[in-house]
Amino acid sequence: MDPNTNSATDTRLAADFALTGISRLVTVAPERYGSGPLGVIPNGALAAQGGRIVWVGAEADLARAVAVEAIPPAARHDAVGRAVLPGFVDSHTHFVFAGNRAEEFQLRHAGVSYEELARQGRGILSTVRATRAAPEETLLALGRGRLESFAIHGTTTVEGKTGYGLEPESEARCLAVMRALAAVPNLPTVVPTFLGAHTLPPEYREHPGDRAAYVDLICERMLPAFAADARFCDVFCERTAFTADEARRILEQARALGYALKLHANQLGPTGGARLAAELHAVSADHLDFASDEELDMLNGAGVVGTLLPGCSFSLGIAYPSAQRLREHGVRTALATDFNPGTSYSENMQMMIALAVSAMGMTLDEAITAATRGGAAALAMEAEVGSLEPGKRCDLIVLRGDDERELAYHFGVNLVARTYLRGHLFMGGEGSTERG
Amino acid sequence: MDPNTNSATDTRLAADFALTGISRLVTVAPERYGSGPLGVIPNGALAAQGGRIVWVGAEADLARAVAVEAIPPAARHDAVGRAVLPGFVDSHTHFVFAGNRAEEFQLRHAGVSYEELARQGRGILSTVRATRAAPEETLLALGRGRLESFAIHGTTTVEGKTGYGLEPESEARCLAVMRALAAVPNLPTVVPTFLGAHTLPPEYREHPGDRAAYVDLICERMLPAFAADARFCDVFCERTAFTADEARRILEQARALGYALKLHANQLGPTGGARLAAELHAVSADHLDFASDEELDMLNGAGVVGTLLPGCSFSLGIAYPSAQRLREHGVRTALATDFNPGTSYSENMQMMIALAVSAMGMTLDEAITAATRGGAAALAMEAEVGSLEPGKRCDLIVLRGDDERELAYHFGVNLVARTYLRGHLFMGGEGSTERG
Repeated sequence: MDPNTNSATDTRLAADFALTGISRLVTVAPERYGSGPLGVIPNGALAAQGGRIVWVGAEADLARAVAVEAIPPAARHDAVGRAVLPGFVDSHTHFVFAGNRAEEFQLRHAGVSYEELARQGRGILSTVRATRAAPEETLLALGRGRLESFAIHGTTTVEGKTGYGLEPESEARCLAVMRALAAVPNLPTVVPTFLGAHTLPPEYREHPGDRAAYVDLICERMLPAFAADARFCDVFCERTAFTADEARRILEQARALGYALKLHANQLGPTGGARLAAELHAVSADHLDFASDEELDMLNGAGVVGTLLPGCSFSLGIAYPSAQRLREHGVRTALATDFNPGTSYSENMQMMIALAVSAMGMTLDEAITAATRGGAAALAMEAEVGSLEPGKRCDLIVLRGDDERELAYHFGVNLVARTYLRGHLFMGGEGSTERG
Repeated sequence: MDPNTNSATDTRLAADFALTGISRLVTVAPERYGSGPLGVIPNGALAAQGGRIVWVGAEADLARAVAVEAIPPAARHDAVGRAVLPGFVDSHTHFVFAGNRAEEFQLRHAGVSYEELARQGRGILSTVRATRAAPEETLLALGRGRLESFAIHGTTTVEGKTGYGLEPESEARCLAVMRALAAVPNLPTVVPTFLGAHTLPPEYREHPGDRAAYVDLICERMLPAFAADARFCDVFCERTAFTADEARRILEQARALGYALKLHANQLGPTGGARLAAELHAVSADHLDFASDEELDMLNGAGVVGTLLPGCSFSLGIAYPSAQRLREHGVRTALATDFNPGTSYSENMQMMIALAVSAMGMTLDEAITAATRGGAAALAMEAEVGSLEPGKRCDLIVLRGDDERELAYHFGVNLVARTYLRGHLFMGGEGSTERG
C-alpha cells in the first residue's frame, strides 16, 4: 500500500502535530532507542496527538508510521537541522515569592556579615514579610513572569514550593497562585509542594515552646487544609531550620494525608535528613552536600532520588556537592535550579548542566539525564515527562545548534531556540522579559 | 528664556538621539557624577549627536541643556524605567576561528586525558587546521554571528586575536575578517590583535631549530606585514607555548613597528610573563593566576592593566585567580570573556561579572567597573568607551530590570533588554541566533 494513501485500511497512527528536520533527536530513552546513553536518533522525527507523543523515530520512517498528511500544515514544524531534547524538568524551585534581595546578595559578597544583614532585616524573613504583604494578583504576576522565563530557557515542568508564607492564610495564597498558574494554558506544568517547614516564622521565635507550637500548626491545621492542592510535602531539615525529629513528625503526618514526600537534607552539615528520607521512602532527598556514605547507600536502597542543586554553591561561593559520590553509591540523580531569591536566583537549567559538568564531576550525558528524566523521577512523574517516547507529554526543546553537546560547553547563554509545551510552541514571555 | 524655544539665541546642545526614562543611569564615571563608586544618576537621561554622547544628567535637566524637540521622534527613546549601563568592553577574545570542539570538551570532562585527546587530533591544533582550511567568507559569517551574540549580551567593543592561522596567509585572512567586520555598521567595535605567537604551529614542532625559526617568521615576515591592520601584538607566554625570552623578542620588535602590547602571562604557572609585561609597559597582562607579589607591584608601577578571565577557570574546572590580590597590589583590573573554542566558550560578559563576584572575590561595583572602564583601559581606549560621559561613544545597554544590582545576583540568564551601538539600537542577530 502506498503509505501516503489515507484509506479505510490505513493502520497508521493519527496525529495533530509533527516535528521533522531534527539533526539529533535526544530521546533520553536509551533502553528503547539505539544510540548511546541518551538514546539519540539521528535525522529524527516525532509526532503527537492531543499533546502526547504518539511516535518517535527516524524521519525516513515517519510517513509509513503516521498519517502526517492529515496534520494541518501549521502543525507540521521543521526543526531546521537543530537538535531536539525533552524539556527540562526542574524538580526543586521556590518560584512564588515577592520582594527583591539583589542588594543583600551584593552586600554579602562585599563582606557584610550574616549578623549585620539579619540586623538590617534582610535574609529569608524579608522575603516572608514581602510575600505575606503581597496580594494574590501580585504573586500571580510575578510567578507567571518567572514561569515564562523558565520556559524560554527550556524548562517545561516546574516544581514550586510554598514556604515564604509560614502561616495558614499566606501559605494557602501561594498554593492558590500555583493552582491558578497550573490552569494557564501554554505555561510549564506546575507541581506544587507544601513547605510550611521552611524556616521558623518570626512570630514563633521568641518563647521556649514556639518551635513545637509551629510544628503543631503545620501538622494540625496546614497539612490537612492543603492536602488537595499540594502534591508533595517538604521540610527544610537543617541546623538552622528543623531537626530530623521535627521533620519526621511533619512528614509522617503528611504521608498519612496522602502527600508524597521530599526533604531538604544535609545541605550545610550532617543532620540525619538523608537517613530520614530513606526511612520514610521520600521521593527525593535534595542537596546532600554532607550525606554520609551510609546515608547514600540507604537512599539507593530505598529508591530515593538524590537532587543536586549546584546553583546554591555557585551563588554562595561555597564547595559543590559531589556527583561522583552519588554515582558511586548508585543513587539516582536529579539536577534542579533551586530557583529562590536567597541562594540561587537562576531559572536556567542549562546553567545547572554547565555547573554539573564543570564543577560537580558529571559527564554531559549524566547531566542531561539528571535534568530531564532524573527530574521526572524526583517528581514521581516518569510516566508523564522527562523523555521523548510515545505516551509521554510532547514537552520538548529545539536547540539553537545541531548538537546537544553544545550544552555545558557553550555556557552562560541560552541555547534554547524554541520550547514546546504539550505540542504547542511557547510564544509568550517576550513581552515581560523582552528577550531570553 | 523658555527652554523649549528654539531661537537664534538657543545655547542648548544639538543632539540627534536621546534616551529618557532611565531608573538608574550607571555612568561608571564616579569622579564626574555623584552617587557611589559607579556614578549612578537616578532618573537619568542622556543625549548623543553623531554617535557620541553630548550630555548626561538628570532627566529633569535635559530640556534645559539639550535641544530635545529638534530630535526626530524615532530617535527619542524611552528606557521605560530600566537601568542603563555603558556597553561592556570585552578586551580579550579569540572570536575568529572555524571548527567545533564541543565533543572534546565533553570527553575531557568525562575523564579522557590530554594525551589521548591530542592523539585523536583534538585540542588547539584542530582549531588551527579548521581555520586554515576555512575560506574567508566562512570565517566572516562565523565571526559576524558571534559578534551579534556578543551584542545581544551587551558587549559593544570586542577585542579579537588572530592565532589560529599561525602562518602568514592564514593570519592575514583572520585580520582581513576583523577588518571587514569592523566596517559593518551596527556591530560591536572590533579591535584586532595579532597573536601569531599563540602556539607553535604543527609544521614547526619537529626539528631542534623550529622554535627559533617560527619566532623569526613572526618577527621578520608577519609583524611588518600586519602593522597596519592589528592594533595590538600579543604573545602566549606559558610553559606550553612561548618563553619569556621569545616573548620579549617578539614584543620588542612589535613595539618598534608601532603595535601596542599585550601578554598572556602566568596563567598556568610562573613564567616571568607578568614581569616582562611591566618591563615593556604593555597595555595589559592577561590571566595572572600565578603572578608573584613582586610582579603585581611591577604591573601597578608600570600602569599595566591586569585582565582577569574567570571563564577559563569555570570551563576548565580549576581554581580562580584572585581579584583580591590585584586589588591589594593596586593593579587596575579588567574583566573579559577570553571567548575561545578551547577554554572559555562564552560571549556573555554578564556571566563573567557573576563569576567575578561569586568566585573571584570582587564586589559588584568592582566587577561592573572592570567589565566596562577596565576593559577600555586594557585596550587603551578610555577616551572612547567604557563610561557614559560627553565625548564618548554612545555605546550602552538597557537592562531588563530597574537596578544594575540584578547583575551577578540573577545569574545564567541574559539581563540585557537592548544594546545601543553608537546611538543606534542593535536589532540584528535574531535571525542567526533566534534568541539571546
